[in-house]
Amino acid sequence: MNPLKNENDLVRRIERRFQSAKPKVARIGRGDDAALFSSRTGCETVLTCDWFLEGLHFLRKKHPPAAVGWKCLARAVSDIAAMGGTPRCFLLSLALPARLTGNWFEGFLRGLRRASSSLRCELAGGDTTHHEKVLIAVTVIGEVQRGRALLRSGARAGDSIFVSGTLGEADAGLRELSKRKGMVPGMSATRSKHLYPEPRLELGAWLATRGLASAAMDVSDGLSSDLPRLCGASNVGARIDVTQLPVSRDVRTEVAWNLALHGGDDYELLFTVARKHLARVPRSFNGLRLTRIGEITREKQIVVVRDGRTQKLVAGGWDPFRR
Amino acid sequence: MNPLKNENDLVRRIERRFQSAKPKVARIGRGDDAALFSSRTGCETVLTCDWFLEGLHFLRKKHPPAAVGWKCLARAVSDIAAMGGTPRCFLLSLALPARLTGNWFEGFLRGLRRASSSLRCELAGGDTTHHEKVLIAVTVIGEVQRGRALLRSGARAGDSIFVSGTLGEADAGLRELSKRKGMVPGMSATRSKHLYPEPRLELGAWLATRGLASAAMDVSDGLSSDLPRLCGASNVGARIDVTQLPVSRDVRTEVAWNLALHGGDDYELLFTVARKHLARVPRSFNGLRLTRIGEITREKQIVVVRDGRTQKLVAGGWDPFRR
Repeated sequence: MNPLKNENDLVRRIERRFQSAKPKVARIGRGDDAALFSSRTGCETVLTCDWFLEGLHFLRKKHPPAAVGWKCLARAVSDIAAMGGTPRCFLLSLALPARLTGNWFEGFLRGLRRASSSLRCELAGGDTTHHEKVLIAVTVIGEVQRGRALLRSGARAGDSIFVSGTLGEADAGLRELSKRKGMVPGMSATRSKHLYPEPRLELGAWLATRGLASAAMDVSDGLSSDLPRLCGASNVGARIDVTQLPVSRDVRTEVAWNLALHGGDDYELLFTVARKHLARVPRSFNGLRLTRIGEITREKQIVVVRDGRTQKLVAGGWDPFRR
Repeated sequence: MNPLKNENDLVRRIERRFQSAKPKVARIGRGDDAALFSSRTGCETVLTCDWFLEGLHFLRKKHPPAAVGWKCLARAVSDIAAMGGTPRCFLLSLALPARLTGNWFEGFLRGLRRASSSLRCELAGGDTTHHEKVLIAVTVIGEVQRGRALLRSGARAGDSIFVSGTLGEADAGLRELSKRKGMVPGMSATRSKHLYPEPRLELGAWLATRGLASAAMDVSDGLSSDLPRLCGASNVGARIDVTQLPVSRDVRTEVAWNLALHGGDDYELLFTVARKHLARVPRSFNGLRLTRIGEITREKQIVVVRDGRTQKLVAGGWDPFRR
């Protein structure tokens, strides 16, 4: 594929790649000033946006273009899952250097198109421009039944804290990539989790429909950064049992605990369940493990317990401004 | 104002600046994973996103932070005006270096807050991160009466072509800024148009409600770049009379014509009107001049006429990929 000459060409190439996916949910947007969208009766619209920047969220020498395309959409969709919603369409703000408008761009579009199909989230429109590094900002528009959205603010003392899947695997995958030179061929479970995360849409929608979760969010920056946000919004504290954390079995336990507490990019759901609903939470949901990792407390601090010893949890997850 | 230490602080400062503007349209978003929005009965949701990047769309040494804050929102809202819609809320994706999180950030928020109030478009949520240059991507969510949106695709041969206001003034303003060193104090009409553009929301909504325009879009990249897009979407051509272009009186005529054809950033509305509705288009709308500048033609090319001589129009407007 040759690099492109102008912005109209770039838009046309995106159009071509998404051609077989004629917009059903949103109309007009691709090729007009804005997109038109109608939410279904009885639903509220869910809106979220997410950065995905070269050098910060991904490295061009480490992350295949298809993974960049997949992940930029998947991580934004994860916020819709965290609200118990269903994604409908997305807007793509994309800036890239002219020399990447050839093969790199094709690979990127392939991954993006695959995520768009797999997550049933169609391309509604966007904005493209030129920049010396790849900049991506994705806005996802979803829906949730009116009044059913999962919020961060409903956790109460005594609620159990759950996470889906395993924690720390994505960070373990990133470490694998970082240890080796250039692109790493083949795919391990941990690398796959880092490169191609799967937003927990079914679980989120199920929790929302059943009214099972008192609060929920996705774990994107790491448990030690995200749990304080949920607790802050709910005005409560939490006690986490380290030995209960669902960790990767491929990593030494001490390291795995550390990754599970502080590693980012897992996109699992963190949710709380009131005592009266506890018996209704299964051990796994559609093959996805659900693990009770602790309890919401009245004291406004977050502590981790290990072998009876209690320690204050200090945020060690991802913060681009931390020095 | 001191620079900030972490991302939570940055979000809190945005919150504080927008505190008096408690969300009415969107709920939850500020402080949760996503925002919830309900459109009014009988309305479609209008979705658009726009880049605003340091070094490309603005220069930190030339553009006051308040103008950056105003313009990043105003130009995205202009796409809503072009669809005949009303803005409701926006999502802010913002990346900036730590050293700009003090005074620069305060100025930026002041301008953004003013645009948000003036355009009645409330902050619904967003994503912040760190980057060595300021990166802004704004998504605006608006509404339009179902089936009433102004599209690019409805122009027919024989329709008259109109623009609102004047063309080329914003580019003249940019040239004024570029000629002088550093920040330029005071404000001329042209500089004001470049720094603080006013999206033509009332005009757009009026055209949509009355069903007067067969096609419409906003002029953001320059007439010679944008008119071909409208004609392409409508599968028609156009003939423009250069001497009819509404230009700034502060600039020599030849230069003014050139700026009006190719200058960007005007955010005026370009719209077409079928012959049967022509008499219903006033010379000005709420003090905003409406000028007939030409006609839609069957031949699929765009020509400019001057003193009886006809010339093909070559795009000279803004294209970040043009070499």
